[in-house]
Amino acid sequence: MIDREKFDEWYNEIVEEAELCDKRYPVKGMNIWKPYGWKIMQNIDAIIREEMERTGHDEVYFPLLIPEGYFKKEEEHIKGFSSEVYWVTHAGKNELEERLVLRPTSETALYSIFSLWIRSHADLPLKTFQIVNTFRYETKMTKAFIRVREIHFFEAHTCHEDFEDAERQIKEDLEIAERFFKKLCLPYVTSKRPDWDKFAGAYYSIGLDVLMPSMKTLQVASIHQYKQNFSIPFNIKYEGKDGKHYYCHQTTYGMSERVLGAIIGVHGDEKGIKLPSSIAPIKVVIIPIIFKGWEEKIMEECRKVKKEIEAMGLSCHIDDRDKTPGNKFYDWELKGVPLRIEIGPKDIENNVVRIATRDGIKKRIAREEIEKIKDELKEYDERLYQRAKEFLEKNIHVLNKLEDKEGIVELPWCGKEECGKKMEEELEMKSLGTPLPEKECNEKCAICGGAALTWLRLAKTY
Amino acid sequence: MIDREKFDEWYNEIVEEAELCDKRYPVKGMNIWKPYGWKIMQNIDAIIREEMERTGHDEVYFPLLIPEGYFKKEEEHIKGFSSEVYWVTHAGKNELEERLVLRPTSETALYSIFSLWIRSHADLPLKTFQIVNTFRYETKMTKAFIRVREIHFFEAHTCHEDFEDAERQIKEDLEIAERFFKKLCLPYVTSKRPDWDKFAGAYYSIGLDVLMPSMKTLQVASIHQYKQNFSIPFNIKYEGKDGKHYYCHQTTYGMSERVLGAIIGVHGDEKGIKLPSSIAPIKVVIIPIIFKGWEEKIMEECRKVKKEIEAMGLSCHIDDRDKTPGNKFYDWELKGVPLRIEIGPKDIENNVVRIATRDGIKKRIAREEIEKIKDELKEYDERLYQRAKEFLEKNIHVLNKLEDKEGIVELPWCGKEECGKKMEEELEMKSLGTPLPEKECNEKCAICGGAALTWLRLAKTY
Repeated sequence: MIDREKFDEWYNEIVEEAELCDKRYPVKGMNIWKPYGWKIMQNIDAIIREEMERTGHDEVYFPLLIPEGYFKKEEEHIKGFSSEVYWVTHAGKNELEERLVLRPTSETALYSIFSLWIRSHADLPLKTFQIVNTFRYETKMTKAFIRVREIHFFEAHTCHEDFEDAERQIKEDLEIAERFFKKLCLPYVTSKRPDWDKFAGAYYSIGLDVLMPSMKTLQVASIHQYKQNFSIPFNIKYEGKDGKHYYCHQTTYGMSERVLGAIIGVHGDEKGIKLPSSIAPIKVVIIPIIFKGWEEKIMEECRKVKKEIEAMGLSCHIDDRDKTPGNKFYDWELKGVPLRIEIGPKDIENNVVRIATRDGIKKRIAREEIEKIKDELKEYDERLYQRAKEFLEKNIHVLNKLEDKEGIVELPWCGKEECGKKMEEELEMKSLGTPLPEKECNEKCAICGGAALTWLRLAKTY
Repeated sequence: MIDREKFDEWYNEIVEEAELCDKRYPVKGMNIWKPYGWKIMQNIDAIIREEMERTGHDEVYFPLLIPEGYFKKEEEHIKGFSSEVYWVTHAGKNELEERLVLRPTSETALYSIFSLWIRSHADLPLKTFQIVNTFRYETKMTKAFIRVREIHFFEAHTCHEDFEDAERQIKEDLEIAERFFKKLCLPYVTSKRPDWDKFAGAYYSIGLDVLMPSMKTLQVASIHQYKQNFSIPFNIKYEGKDGKHYYCHQTTYGMSERVLGAIIGVHGDEKGIKLPSSIAPIKVVIIPIIFKGWEEKIMEECRKVKKEIEAMGLSCHIDDRDKTPGNKFYDWELKGVPLRIEIGPKDIENNVVRIATRDGIKKRIAREEIEKIKDELKEYDERLYQRAKEFLEKNIHVLNKLEDKEGIVELPWCGKEECGKKMEEELEMKSLGTPLPEKECNEKCAICGGAALTWLRLAKTY
């Protein structure tokens, strides 16, 4: 893991060195996805789609542009977003009759149509999602994948008969997140955001935060219970079994390219990024160690091994460039390929292959036991996860009074906004919210000394 | 195939009835992709990606917003597009210093960066593509998938050392198109567009057009040779083997959701759409024919058959809704599922399954020969293709003088723009261009009577 002090500089450089993106596009906060970065993001999307299919969500695609009138239907929502949306005002040489917003998120686009799609209880629950580009005019310093102005965004939107069914959905979302982030070897903390920091229009919001080596947390997912806050202004009603009409209850679940930012940050080291095998475009790279007179034999062996690895369902690449093995090691470590295989004359003679995982474990594997690399990848993933988990746990500090600590702090909290905000101020941190699942608290509020019903989790955040 | 007179109405209805899109979104020309339509489009994209990978193109993603200054670098290009682009002028409450265009196509976004990516001949050819949303402020009547204002768009962009290598790329593009459209069972004509109708900024343009039942042609792909028209204003230079610097030669290949429009139009009939098996989200639907006392047995048999079909790599769905078989047939025919299987008590007793392809072929297949449905699907695809091909060929009219004909007309042409435009005017058609591969012509120009060096292909167009 990268040292705290070096992290920002390292991160800003590595995203370009590993060929994930190019930051030279002339619009601030809008970067170019290079082939390697885009492929990783598509692999992340594929895992999301798998989870969505497993849980019966249908994929849709709604238009990017939202009419101003729609966008302004939910009062809190527009308040929250109005300072950070892009406006289309002209088309060709004409001024538009109604201005259009580039979606910062799609509630207002979807919900006017949901009111047409939903007629009766038989249409519920409605579970949809989309993976789209969204736009936010960020005023803070931009950072590749972490704070950008065109965002690669996943958003699930669901409608339910009642509050209880919407709550069940949120439970399902939390399970989806658990499976999803485990595949990315990313441990996180789950917090119910304080009321003053919930999503614009939400009844309550849950945030999933990853701790980065900079000791700042990065929100990588958010889940919102809307209750009827949107269904009333957007008129999303259904006929119940009793023949009466009711407003739906709604939830959303959102993630973005920040997930990639977290993977880069949490797993990376001085040599480059480290990709979990679930999303690595190349899972295994083979480096031929060529000696004179052995060229043909070695290349043949490499091709054989590649074939066998591909037959196992693993993507594999032979690096036959005209470079030294050392230079090749460097390139693939930079790009985070999970497993490297070296094949030279001695390996052929001894009937073995030499492997090295991206986190530095080196082994010889008998040639006929090549299928063992599957286990090696599994163990590599588990090590990535465990190391990150240790780092996270070591840096969660459960305190009973204000103290300067790096990482995540949990303080007994009476629940009053003024006490929470006082903690933020004193610690120069932001509230992540109260821990989920709920954690018992029998302490006194770290600010007012009153009975603390719960904990407030705080951290410096991105 | 739908009758010419009924086509427009049929098309406009079927896109919603088959649940491909919802046209009720309140911005003109911007429709909602419903889950079924979006899944089909993603399957089409998957075939494109396969072809791109096979031919060594890398996928990238460039920002949607293009600064006005970049957009205006190539003179012809901006002339061609300026009347149909959307402008972002404000963000939050601020007016932007420089206006931003929503990409109508991405030349101007990519090429300023290509000038940074390309340094030497070793970087060439550069072969990239992206699949993105693009925007055109269409002033003509909009039509789902065919003329929309937010377009699901594929664009390949390549850079080459010289004109010859760019020409080789165009040959490869034509081969890609051939394979791609064959998988979609879509026959087409290939024409070199006349100079007055080439892409804004192109040296020459090739169009691929499908003939719709309305007797109008629909451009489904275009391939452009740019020569150095963009590389000069965008300064895309490389150092040659001789140490000197040269401007690249460039090509593009574009397709869009229009491909889906063509599939709907060309293959559809009164019952609904007909999907080629390569892109059908459900390739086989099983309808249990339930008789009293047989419920359990029949459902068990259906599940067994489904399992076997899925093991063959084919997506399969059992329709166990509480509806009559007739109603179920109707629904799946509407949605174009290639193959239906019916399983009732007699089928189990006789150890068979009954199949019906979407184009009306009915058969009994011995239960143990279920793998034969693979051949049935192949033959179904081939019939779709052949029927469309017959229709196309029957409606290409090679003439030697002006004559009113429906479909596509080919006339001897001296090559002069005024004669070509006169043909357009007289026939109330548009030029598609000269046939590719080139067709010998020893006739006299149908307008001026001068020596005709080639043919001009014309049609009514979308």
